[in-house]
Amino acid sequence: MMYTSALIVGAGSGLSASVARAFATAGLKIALAARSTEKLAGLAADIGARTFSCDATNKTEVDSLFAKLDAGSVPDVVVYNPSYRTRGPLIELDPVEVEKSIRISAFGGFLVAQAAVSRMLPLRRGAIFFTGASASIKGYAQSAPFAMGKFALRGLAQSLARELSPQGIHIAHFVIDGGIRSANRAPSIDNPDSLLDPDAIAQTYLSILNQPRSAWSSEIELRPWVEKF
Amino acid sequence: MMYTSALIVGAGSGLSASVARAFATAGLKIALAARSTEKLAGLAADIGARTFSCDATNKTEVDSLFAKLDAGSVPDVVVYNPSYRTRGPLIELDPVEVEKSIRISAFGGFLVAQAAVSRMLPLRRGAIFFTGASASIKGYAQSAPFAMGKFALRGLAQSLARELSPQGIHIAHFVIDGGIRSANRAPSIDNPDSLLDPDAIAQTYLSILNQPRSAWSSEIELRPWVEKF
Amino acid sequence: MMYTSALIVGAGSGLSASVARAFATAGLKIALAARSTEKLAGLAADIGARTFSCDATNKTEVDSLFAKLDAGSVPDVVVYNPSYRTRGPLIELDPVEVEKSIRISAFGGFLVAQAAVSRMLPLRRGAIFFTGASASIKGYAQSAPFAMGKFALRGLAQSLARELSPQGIHIAHFVIDGGIRSANRAPSIDNPDSLLDPDAIAQTYLSILNQPRSAWSSEIELRPWVEKF
Amino acid sequence: MMYTSALIVGAGSGLSASVARAFATAGLKIALAARSTEKLAGLAADIGARTFSCDATNKTEVDSLFAKLDAGSVPDVVVYNPSYRTRGPLIELDPVEVEKSIRISAFGGFLVAQAAVSRMLPLRRGAIFFTGASASIKGYAQSAPFAMGKFALRGLAQSLARELSPQGIHIAHFVIDGGIRSANRAPSIDNPDSLLDPDAIAQTYLSILNQPRSAWSSEIELRPWVEKF
Repeated sequence: MMYTSALIVGAGSGLSASVARAFATAGLKIALAARSTEKLAGLAADIGARTFSCDATNKTEVDSLFAKLDAGSVPDVVVYNPSYRTRGPLIELDPVEVEKSIRISAFGGFLVAQAAVSRMLPLRRGAIFFTGASASIKGYAQSAPFAMGKFALRGLAQSLARELSPQGIHIAHFVIDGGIRSANRAPSIDNPDSLLDPDAIAQTYLSILNQPRSAWSSEIELRPWVEKF
Repeated sequence: MMYTSALIVGAGSGLSASVARAFATAGLKIALAARSTEKLAGLAADIGARTFSCDATNKTEVDSLFAKLDAGSVPDVVVYNPSYRTRGPLIELDPVEVEKSIRISAFGGFLVAQAAVSRMLPLRRGAIFFTGASASIKGYAQSAPFAMGKFALRGLAQSLARELSPQGIHIAHFVIDGGIRSANRAPSIDNPDSLLDPDAIAQTYLSILNQPRSAWSSEIELRPWVEKF
Repeated sequence: MMYTSALIVGAGSGLSASVARAFATAGLKIALAARSTEKLAGLAADIGARTFSCDATNKTEVDSLFAKLDAGSVPDVVVYNPSYRTRGPLIELDPVEVEKSIRISAFGGFLVAQAAVSRMLPLRRGAIFFTGASASIKGYAQSAPFAMGKFALRGLAQSLARELSPQGIHIAHFVIDGGIRSANRAPSIDNPDSLLDPDAIAQTYLSILNQPRSAWSSEIELRPWVEKF
Repeated sequence: MMYTSALIVGAGSGLSASVARAFATAGLKIALAARSTEKLAGLAADIGARTFSCDATNKTEVDSLFAKLDAGSVPDVVVYNPSYRTRGPLIELDPVEVEKSIRISAFGGFLVAQAAVSRMLPLRRGAIFFTGASASIKGYAQSAPFAMGKFALRGLAQSLARELSPQGIHIAHFVIDGGIRSANRAPSIDNPDSLLDPDAIAQTYLSILNQPRSAWSSEIELRPWVEKF
């Protein structure tokens, strides 16, 4: 493992928890950041992670988060996971919710990447992973806000990959193309593995993190075997 | 010509002026909207257009614009043209400018489309065209803000195409893949036509507008013959 | 109209006939080529076209076709239209049919383009249009042969666009994303215009042909307003 | 490791050898197939692989290869690696070479996949990996034949992924976007890791092979950190 310390932004109970566990098992120190850290106590205890309260769409809070991390383990791996969606027919959408979707899904990713990269650049090493969705590459009907946010995040990831890969920073964007299994949402018995297992996704996050720089992936799609695409 | 009245948002001296002239010549009544209408006087006089001051990123102003249009010719064609870019290495970017880029390039497109579609839907006809750029499909190094804005606009356009085409509303997104010739920027003698002539672009906007609904295009890229891609 | 003479390869009764009529109406002399010219008599008489028998997958026949055209009007516009599909589960496909699909859908396009370009290059002007399909950009289940042929044709078109656009030759690839209406296949009354009208497609072929070289499109998708995509 | 036996088609000294070694180390029995098996002796001895002479573009030889494998370990993993390129200005290309490029790069992939899948389907498990290139997604100037072959292979892979993933067969297409380091071609000291290390590529082939079916990737691009894209 060529990295030492990972920050998971948008940490919660689903994919982010699986990624945190997988990275911890691989030997990384973990920091978990979320708007509310209440739900993180169990996970943090399990993997020995520190937790931080942070609204990733607020530059002051992001700067404060990284200032705290500077005092301990500066992350050489960052995963940006937050997203927010609102949906419905165009004419029924609330513009406030649309902006919120873009800010959480994409603008926060910019703020976090900017703070992280300012620490990584002097060392010319690091990795920043962005979690995308089907909506990152296809704008679905009645889902314009999520498409706007996720497309914007992909644009950010592409731009950063082109700027920062030659500086030694691995930028990767994951297109999670299907529903993720959770406590509330399980595949039917008739259709096993029809939802993405978050641990399975995390396994690929880890294998991409382990790629040598002579053969980096910058975009990886993942979908269940039975998913139509 | 199956339409009667076009609103050009983000009207100025370049592509938007050429589109306005082309649409006027084809018989459409033209309304021009821009943050400042001072520069529009000459164009408006030439083509008999009305002009409106409107900040497209402000819902109140967009609603006011459409309310004024409701009293006259409700547009059955809308072109959304504004964009704003700031560029530089990631760590030097001003987050305020990044949000401005997303708001002008994409969020304003949402507000304008929402207002326009609420008028078009009852009639089940209309056309909304979005002006994109190379950055709509490729995130360039040191240009994350523009990529975020233009990717988001493309996500919006795709989502609206899927929702609204079956309602009779033609949604099209134009990828302008190269520099546009202007008063300040002309191709060299050695390399004629190496910049996009805005009148040439407008010719294609017009031909797409004239497409029968049995064979609509939803994304059209345009580039000069000598452009590398 | 900046061109004088068009060759339509794979001429028949559907899209190719509509393109031939549209181009003839715009003032182009038309040559029609097909494996069998019997069905072309009516169309040829209508538009004053010459007809030629040619198997486009056979280099000798393609060379012979162009040699005959050299004696009359050398085409400065060529449309490559043929395709062949076979479908079914992978393990039931006949390899002979698979090769036939690739040869007709793509290899013939190479042969025709090569012969055409050798005449266009000295003049540094001309246009070559390739007719693609949904399968050009998406490989559907149980349709590998058609995907292979149409993907290969798109690869050819992209490569030629990059090589030949800067030589003044307009290369365009059309993605016809839906069923085309025909004598045997009409939209239902409940769902008008749900199939592409070949005359509507031809209208866009003509408008792309009329693009000035400062703003060329190289790929254009067309689909009916109600088509899911 | 959920698989037992891998067939590498187009085995040689570069990427295919690295994949063979990586898969062997992971516990798979390896079969190596190539037109000429002379060069394979050293590799085969190293990893305890069997070698087979086979022209993958010839159905009879492909059937014969699989018949031999039926008698031993039927492969539940197949990697299709062959490609052939010829390049130059369109009008100088030899059509015989163009067909050869398509046949080796794509048609052979169809034949091998067909034979392999007929064995995998009854078991509803297996994996078929196709090696693509930059030319799989971008048709470069003066490289039409390679674009045609590699685009066709990608069309095949997409079609098979949609048909066979729901049957339990993992289809993956790798876009190797850069030059591969070899005995004859090493990165300069000033620009380390600027060529893809075949062992690094193979590491990702192996991690994709290990993906659980609830989160499969179907297309993976790999490029060196410093590669422009």
